[in-house]
Amino acid sequence: MDIKKLVAEMTLEEKAAMCAGSDFWHTKGVERLGVPSVMVTDGPCGLRKQAGESDHLGLNASVTAVSYPTGSCIASSFDRELIQRSGEILGEECQAEDVAVLLGPAVNIKRSPLCGRNFEYFSEDPYAAGEMAAAYIKGVQSKQVGTSLKHFAANSQEHRRMTSDSVVDERTLRELYLPAFEKAVKEAKPWTVMCSYNKLNGTYASENHRLLTEILREDWGYDGMVVSDWGAVNDRVKGVAAGMDLEMPGPGKENATKITEAVLSGTLSEEDLNKAVERVLKVVAQYIENRQPNTAFQYERDHEMARQMAAESMVLLKNEAGILPLSKEKKVAFLGEFAKHPRFQGGGSSHVTCYKITGAVEAAKDLNIVYAPGYSIESQEPQEELLAEAVKAAKEADCAVLFIGITDEMESEGFDRKNLKIPFGQQRLIEEVVKVQKNTIAVIHCGAPVEMPWLNDVKAVLYAYLGGEAVGSAVVDLLYGEKNPSGKLAETFPLRLEDNPSYLYYFGEGDLTEYREGIFVGYRYYDKKDMEVLFPFGYGLSYTEFAYSSLRLDRDSLKDTDSLHVSVKVENIGNRAGKEIVQLYVQDNESSVIRPVKELKGFEKVELAPGEEKEVSFTLDKRSFAYYNTEISDWDVETGDFTIMIGKSSRDIALSAVVRVESTRQYKRVFTINSTFGDIMADPKGQEIVSKMLEKMNLDDIGGEAISKDAMMAMMGYMPLRGALMMGGDKIRPEMIEGLLDQLNA
Amino acid sequence: MDIKKLVAEMTLEEKAAMCAGSDFWHTKGVERLGVPSVMVTDGPCGLRKQAGESDHLGLNASVTAVSYPTGSCIASSFDRELIQRSGEILGEECQAEDVAVLLGPAVNIKRSPLCGRNFEYFSEDPYAAGEMAAAYIKGVQSKQVGTSLKHFAANSQEHRRMTSDSVVDERTLRELYLPAFEKAVKEAKPWTVMCSYNKLNGTYASENHRLLTEILREDWGYDGMVVSDWGAVNDRVKGVAAGMDLEMPGPGKENATKITEAVLSGTLSEEDLNKAVERVLKVVAQYIENRQPNTAFQYERDHEMARQMAAESMVLLKNEAGILPLSKEKKVAFLGEFAKHPRFQGGGSSHVTCYKITGAVEAAKDLNIVYAPGYSIESQEPQEELLAEAVKAAKEADCAVLFIGITDEMESEGFDRKNLKIPFGQQRLIEEVVKVQKNTIAVIHCGAPVEMPWLNDVKAVLYAYLGGEAVGSAVVDLLYGEKNPSGKLAETFPLRLEDNPSYLYYFGEGDLTEYREGIFVGYRYYDKKDMEVLFPFGYGLSYTEFAYSSLRLDRDSLKDTDSLHVSVKVENIGNRAGKEIVQLYVQDNESSVIRPVKELKGFEKVELAPGEEKEVSFTLDKRSFAYYNTEISDWDVETGDFTIMIGKSSRDIALSAVVRVESTRQYKRVFTINSTFGDIMADPKGQEIVSKMLEKMNLDDIGGEAISKDAMMAMMGYMPLRGALMMGGDKIRPEMIEGLLDQLNA
Repeated sequence: MDIKKLVAEMTLEEKAAMCAGSDFWHTKGVERLGVPSVMVTDGPCGLRKQAGESDHLGLNASVTAVSYPTGSCIASSFDRELIQRSGEILGEECQAEDVAVLLGPAVNIKRSPLCGRNFEYFSEDPYAAGEMAAAYIKGVQSKQVGTSLKHFAANSQEHRRMTSDSVVDERTLRELYLPAFEKAVKEAKPWTVMCSYNKLNGTYASENHRLLTEILREDWGYDGMVVSDWGAVNDRVKGVAAGMDLEMPGPGKENATKITEAVLSGTLSEEDLNKAVERVLKVVAQYIENRQPNTAFQYERDHEMARQMAAESMVLLKNEAGILPLSKEKKVAFLGEFAKHPRFQGGGSSHVTCYKITGAVEAAKDLNIVYAPGYSIESQEPQEELLAEAVKAAKEADCAVLFIGITDEMESEGFDRKNLKIPFGQQRLIEEVVKVQKNTIAVIHCGAPVEMPWLNDVKAVLYAYLGGEAVGSAVVDLLYGEKNPSGKLAETFPLRLEDNPSYLYYFGEGDLTEYREGIFVGYRYYDKKDMEVLFPFGYGLSYTEFAYSSLRLDRDSLKDTDSLHVSVKVENIGNRAGKEIVQLYVQDNESSVIRPVKELKGFEKVELAPGEEKEVSFTLDKRSFAYYNTEISDWDVETGDFTIMIGKSSRDIALSAVVRVESTRQYKRVFTINSTFGDIMADPKGQEIVSKMLEKMNLDDIGGEAISKDAMMAMMGYMPLRGALMMGGDKIRPEMIEGLLDQLNA
Repeated sequence: MDIKKLVAEMTLEEKAAMCAGSDFWHTKGVERLGVPSVMVTDGPCGLRKQAGESDHLGLNASVTAVSYPTGSCIASSFDRELIQRSGEILGEECQAEDVAVLLGPAVNIKRSPLCGRNFEYFSEDPYAAGEMAAAYIKGVQSKQVGTSLKHFAANSQEHRRMTSDSVVDERTLRELYLPAFEKAVKEAKPWTVMCSYNKLNGTYASENHRLLTEILREDWGYDGMVVSDWGAVNDRVKGVAAGMDLEMPGPGKENATKITEAVLSGTLSEEDLNKAVERVLKVVAQYIENRQPNTAFQYERDHEMARQMAAESMVLLKNEAGILPLSKEKKVAFLGEFAKHPRFQGGGSSHVTCYKITGAVEAAKDLNIVYAPGYSIESQEPQEELLAEAVKAAKEADCAVLFIGITDEMESEGFDRKNLKIPFGQQRLIEEVVKVQKNTIAVIHCGAPVEMPWLNDVKAVLYAYLGGEAVGSAVVDLLYGEKNPSGKLAETFPLRLEDNPSYLYYFGEGDLTEYREGIFVGYRYYDKKDMEVLFPFGYGLSYTEFAYSSLRLDRDSLKDTDSLHVSVKVENIGNRAGKEIVQLYVQDNESSVIRPVKELKGFEKVELAPGEEKEVSFTLDKRSFAYYNTEISDWDVETGDFTIMIGKSSRDIALSAVVRVESTRQYKRVFTINSTFGDIMADPKGQEIVSKMLEKMNLDDIGGEAISKDAMMAMMGYMPLRGALMMGGDKIRPEMIEGLLDQLNA
């Protein structure tokens, strides 16, 4: 397609119409000019293609597809390759179903574990989320199918999601809520970016020029299309001017009329409209011109992929006295309805109509197990008969595996969770079972953390997250050691909900949601406050053990424009093959700004046979050391020492080394009458100039018994230059201060 | 003085000159018109009158006076009468020394226990601070001496205090940082208010029109003078226009010239200048015309007053197995240099040259005690010889009293504390002594909380705070039961510094200090986050016990314009006379805004003989239930149930009762296209109107298996009205929405 030519040939009305879809799932075609319509479909963890007529919210039946582990689950794999491969398969499925754009990945930051949609999101850490999103996009788009990077931006709650206003300071936006988008945009160039429902600092994301044009396009160089989240449009004309290209769902007739009128009246530039249309057409062309019509949906292969992804992602949180893996000789009681009917996906737009669902009971049908439901998914309360039956089964077995977690009613797109508890009926099941069976293992199905007041009562915990349709096979593979757990948490599990940094102000008052904790989200908060947590970010166990050695930095110091290469050796010192996720954190040892204790700046997953050792390497650049300096509106590194930490988790640092980074930024300090003596004296030139003045003032007699020497020095240090007039009496004249400032700023 | 007439007779230059003092401590006189100069002097806990020439910072020697317990100490008395009486005595001392204005009280809120000046401040709670400030002012001013309510406002740190910018949202200002000033201004009418050094939301307090004129004078009706903190003036002309009347210290010649020029050039209205001069002259007149020249400084009486105040204020924090009071028969080792040389006041402007200082060793000279210094005040490190001597003394005694705390070098005006620890040498002393002496008691001298990792190792803790010059007598009175401890904490003692709500962002970056924790200061934070603390707000023990009964409210429900009378009976059920501080907290049981769990709205201190019972009563009004509603810029009560809690401390609620409060505010809800269905349906009229539209939309088929019914309802509830266009397809037209809004808002 010659897009420029097409746009030139389109009438104003045709162009205005093109700014919305034709229905719930399709772009508009222009028959006269041979522009076809293409389809978009919900993701991100499987296709939810509505083949028939779509309903009011686009949430009824969809065609059969494969449900993969959700975002919070695959994030725990920390495996870029695996995520990219899953993207490739999703891309093929889209080609098979003639879907042009898959609506994912979802990369919003987990501000609170309560957010109902956390199961779709990757992490509380923007670096991790960005890396995973880029891998996902690369995978899908390698099959000539577009992605939609969502939800842009600062959409970390479901509560009042369509009207809430996320009030976030600039530094927090740049350091926490935007970098995952930035990384994915710069590295993987998603065909589309989806704006979120909420307002950001007072302006709807769907008409936020700063977000969609200044940051996304001008700062980051994005040249793709922006699509609205379904129903996110408020003022369509403002949206076009802001850079929001495609309104969904369509047909948006009234808005087309408004756009036309706005162009005619001059309140909207036709150039802005043309850009929007060009971007929509570009997506259509990219898909149509690279169509792979002979691709088939390979259900069985993809189901196996779902199983593999789940097994690589689930996190072994506890394994006392090596109770896992289970021996196949043992008689095992699988307890809890989730063993038979697993919860493996979340509710809402990511919901997939599955090819087949494998529960743990079915996956273990050839093993020595008994099953008792223990509770009913339909109720949160204990069911005494089910309970008694489960307790009996537990007692008669060698060990018990409790399949627990939370239900669709408690966790879904559309609303936030009320607490971090599992249903009371399941809590009772745990209590009763551990009374009769010491060897009890918990397998937990949930898209986000739960509190575990009963943690000490069980021997092992496997966090299955929402593991996709093959979840039961993956759980059984891990429980019995067919596979070795290798997932680690991409989010902190707090001891209690109240510990969460956003707790006081989550989810706001009315439509106002203030992100008051700022940059202190997730482990950045728990580390800074030195708080105990249930399980830290980056934590996860294996059936083998790894030893770290030989941390090497390729230089002791560098300029902030240089790269730093870091390598470390990791050895499998156990007797079982396994994978380790090696994490690199950076700490700014001293800073004039408030910074986290440390931040994740690298991770690698490495597979090791027993006794095998491999070298893992990382490359750090300016961004690895920088904070976002709002004074210069740019990333900035303060000259000084930084500690490079290699960790098994964020709280288990194996090795560390210090490196000095020199800032190359040229900046001139400007002193004013309100610069403090302390600040001026910290500057070599300032010290020379000011010392002379202080001599004149003859300060020997001040202070006396009323104040200690230290306090005196602090008071002086905090005094602004103008204070010299007060202290100097007649000896200091305003002209002298002015002269001094001239010298200082010369 | 006929002030209006005087001002009319003054030249512009004379008026401009009058806007600053003549020197460090005096207002300017106008000889030609018979206007005298009057003196102001530092307080607040004793006179620091510099009789000779003042130095650069006004901190050298002052005349002999009496040092009273500092703000944090007397606050713990929770005794309005006592505080008022102390004010009366201070007022008499001022008359004796010909001082027109005593520079206190200091009522800033304790945002962090690190603030170096917390020892001068009353509380973390604005109600408590306001009540105490009003009592103090009434006392001093009853002697025809002025006070200076300081430091106005949001000056809760010493770090960079002269240039830092306190960024505080409006609701937090109104609910936390201003009410103590508001209460004192409205109830006690201080002659002067002292503006603080810092900026508030970008503007120096000394030139902050919103603060000094709109809030202080227009909102609160203040008609007194505003004086600058010493050296707080930045732009003097802006200051006059903002309502800052008197610059200190003087003479401010250059600024007088600037004021004159500004009036002549029209950038400053002469009316504003006249107002400033009138207010300065009013203070002069108030003092001069009511002079009590025959008042004598009664050192001995006042020293006794200092002793009484200290005994009524110190807080007994622990008393295991009733180890206290001590029997006079026992041989007691007084250990620690503070036993002989107590720390009893803070450094800086509040520092008093004492009449006499009574340490505990001197106060106990007739008792069976031995003394060993144990550590040196000069060093934070252990002194092995002193340590050994103290351990020996402890071993040979029946019990040991450790006099510990922090030193002037660690806590003072002018800088903030670095941590909450006592010196390492003292920590060692505790460790070594408790090894040989089980019956160990700690007496702690500090103006603010310390961490107590050794709390379990000692049997009793008496928090002496900074108890004034008679501190030793008061401590001995309490230790031996001559007096019964009756103080309770006016601030929370956290387990660790990191627990403090302001920890992450205290004390800011450069000059920017963001009060991000908002209204969650002190117990408001610890309660909301359900955190353990070392000792809660309002906590303190007695040698007797009190029982609470018969909580009565004079009505079950009231309008927010009514008053509620609450009474409760308190009985001394021990066998020793004592005083109890009865606390009243109010909880808003359900609120659409984020509120603290509870807030202090009343306290009474009551004295009871053994077996005696008294009824204590409280009157609550609108403010007791209200929050500051920024939408209407006024205090507001949401209709609903409130719980009235009567507590022995903030964490020991003895009795509670529920009352319903009805709002009398007339307000009309305006619905827009962005009002959510949930909000509209919550309105009876809205429900009727919207239900009809929903019927038309025929929503029965949405949702399906992708989403639970609850999630569906939440999604609908959060959807704005404009969403109906998306959901309704052709059935819903924009005109229908407009019509519906017209009906809703009719």
